[in-house]
Amino acid sequence: MTTLFRQMTICGVGLIGGSLAITARRHGLVERVVGLGRTQANLDVALARGFVDMATRDPAAAARGADLVMLATPVMTFPETLAAMVPYLPDDAVITDVGSVKQWVVEALEPLLGPRMTLVGVHPVAGKETTGAAAAEEGLYHNRRVIVTPSARSTPAAVAKIEALWRATGANVEQMSPAVHDAILARASHLPQLVASALAAALEGERVDGRLAAEFGAGGLRDTTRIAASSPEMWRDICLTNRAAIGEALRLFRAAFDDFENAVALGDADQLIALFERGRALRQRLK
Amino acid sequence: MTTLFRQMTICGVGLIGGSLAITARRHGLVERVVGLGRTQANLDVALARGFVDMATRDPAAAARGADLVMLATPVMTFPETLAAMVPYLPDDAVITDVGSVKQWVVEALEPLLGPRMTLVGVHPVAGKETTGAAAAEEGLYHNRRVIVTPSARSTPAAVAKIEALWRATGANVEQMSPAVHDAILARASHLPQLVASALAAALEGERVDGRLAAEFGAGGLRDTTRIAASSPEMWRDICLTNRAAIGEALRLFRAAFDDFENAVALGDADQLIALFERGRALRQRLK
Repeated sequence: MTTLFRQMTICGVGLIGGSLAITARRHGLVERVVGLGRTQANLDVALARGFVDMATRDPAAAARGADLVMLATPVMTFPETLAAMVPYLPDDAVITDVGSVKQWVVEALEPLLGPRMTLVGVHPVAGKETTGAAAAEEGLYHNRRVIVTPSARSTPAAVAKIEALWRATGANVEQMSPAVHDAILARASHLPQLVASALAAALEGERVDGRLAAEFGAGGLRDTTRIAASSPEMWRDICLTNRAAIGEALRLFRAAFDDFENAVALGDADQLIALFERGRALRQRLK
Repeated sequence: MTTLFRQMTICGVGLIGGSLAITARRHGLVERVVGLGRTQANLDVALARGFVDMATRDPAAAARGADLVMLATPVMTFPETLAAMVPYLPDDAVITDVGSVKQWVVEALEPLLGPRMTLVGVHPVAGKETTGAAAAEEGLYHNRRVIVTPSARSTPAAVAKIEALWRATGANVEQMSPAVHDAILARASHLPQLVASALAAALEGERVDGRLAAEFGAGGLRDTTRIAASSPEMWRDICLTNRAAIGEALRLFRAAFDDFENAVALGDADQLIALFERGRALRQRLK
């Protein structure tokens, strides 16, 4: 393949950015990879594994020569990181990010860009339990969904290059607007998190006759609350940056929950069957 | 061990009753096991595997000589099954059941009993994906929780014998009242089911810009909705037979859900952290 970018600077050299860097280098899609990070230990791992050519904790040093900047830190840190880099970037730099909300990123970052710079958001719907440069692996995106979310200001040339970069990983790349992305993920990802966390929070400390109720749960309780163990800081940020769409998703859930509660209160056997069947239909579709 | 019962008649010779029968026979705790079922094919499996001495579809034939009757069919069928057997049972027969709700069973069955008969409810908190006599296995209850729920009318002698029977399986046997059992299980088991089913029902058919939102869910959505694939008929019956306690559990969840929804609507970062931390604390306790 032909080279897409001379220098890709990854801000936050972890599982997501590191895994992409491995593929990009192997295919010669980028000539040089620079890692910007906060902790030297993680940068040293990235250097030792050979998927960055240079690692630094200095945004200015990381920015110089970067015709592609990939933001892969927590979403709410993007504006500060990018603002520190913009004065040192080539004036036609492409900015991309791998955050899990997209409209907020457009609104927060585009005002920071120079007139010839362009932002192309991406959400790789992949991940695993482990994090950090040590966890990066070439196969991470194979057959996974990668959503590219151009804004009205994204240039077609930059969008095409970003898509080519991700396609090289074996991912299924698709395009949608930032707003559509956020509405879909609010339902498919953010809502399940809030529901699982609310269920777990409801049972925390709940005792009946001196016994902790949750200790009597079996596999069903464990499955349903598994993601409640996720990082509170990460989910706080997602809630703060996708408030409106998450609000819609919560209302969607509330309507279904109300239906179940009413059917239980009324002892409505037919309605209970219909509701459980409806839930089962969705679940069987996911298999 | 000494013999506890001369004849145990199991109504519904599936995973739960079959697994107990294997242990009871091996330890000589029952002299004879009779299986009552609806489908000859399943009874033939139980006969072929040798854990029943006789199998029948006739309640009268199953009742004769049974000093222990174990009801292991869907809970709402217990009254009809027991009513058909009572005239043919020994007048001091012990009745037990393995239903997952307990107070309803006491209220529905005790009026059917002869004056010297006694009911001792049990809830073995065990199970696996497979069902039927073919799935029965001796180790099913090892180190699992088995809850014995005597009513005010249960005789101490019968309770002691039922507990001895279950302890032989290697289960951790504990005792609580039917009402406490139902309140705990409403929170630890029935609530997660309703929440998972409501989440799945909310997303069924939900499209954004023509795309099915749920198809964009990853492991979080799959974990959180896994049990929504469970039997609608089984869960209808649980809802109908444990309405009051499930109603309390639903209110408990609603309060937590309201807290999350308010925190999202207000963009209250500190409250979001506190709520996600609360959920995570419960989840970490379950590990």
